Amino acid sequence: MTTETDENLRDLIASDRVEGTPVYNREGERLGRISHFMVEKRSGQVRYAVLSFGGFLGLGEDRYPLPWSMLGYDTGKGGYVVDLDARVLDQAPRFGDDGRPDYSEDYGRSVYSFYGQIYPW
Amino acid sequence: MTTETDENLRDLIASDRVEGTPVYNREGERLGRISHFMVEKRSGQVRYAVLSFGGFLGLGEDRYPLPWSMLGYDTGKGGYVVDLDARVLDQAPRFGDDGRPDYSEDYGRSVYSFYGQIYPW
Repeated sequence: MTTETDENLRDLIASDRVEGTPVYNREGERLGRISHFMVEKRSGQVRYAVLSFGGFLGLGEDRYPLPWSMLGYDTGKGGYVVDLDARVLDQAPRFGDDGRPDYSEDYGRSVYSFYGQIYPW
Repeated sequence: MTTETDENLRDLIASDRVEGTPVYNREGERLGRISHFMVEKRSGQVRYAVLSFGGFLGLGEDRYPLPWSMLGYDTGKGGYVVDLDARVLDQAPRFGDDGRPDYSEDYGRSVYSFYGQIYPW
């Protein structure tokens, strides 16, 4: 048996500990937190981490799907770090509380392309 | 934007919709529900779905890490299906509320081996 700290030193993380985990940029600014992530059912591959950002006291937050590969984990901060300026999110693909995207191939390509990543599927 | 039903027809599923999802065996008996799952941080690959099973009204439930590859999704049932008899779980690797396993390589091999699966890492 293990503590959360030990677990962070290992290469696995529990889904229910990813959700709500803070996300920082390279400058150490808190961008938001992980809302949830999207898993490919058949392969079990995580494709997107969805960042909650903006709003006030949890109201009016928007959600930004990020390619999973953009996220690094910083054990010192206890959160994820992405190389991303908050201002970039002004133009980024997002969705609100009223629904979720259909995560079609076109949608995936537009998200990956926005962040300068190759869509690998 | 899409409904949950549409989303189930796609190849992606949201982490917060996997958690709590019922798990059935091939005979349609309800074995339990998904508690959470374990993701490899670097690659984003899901290694284990953790099944909650046993206990009464949520008390005393044990948790059973299952290789993700054992799970199939049944859109008709709205849940996962595994080829597993509840009696097999009597002998299966499990943990309680007081901690989580360390998910070492030895632990992983013992879980995969118990279910007759190759440990692929």
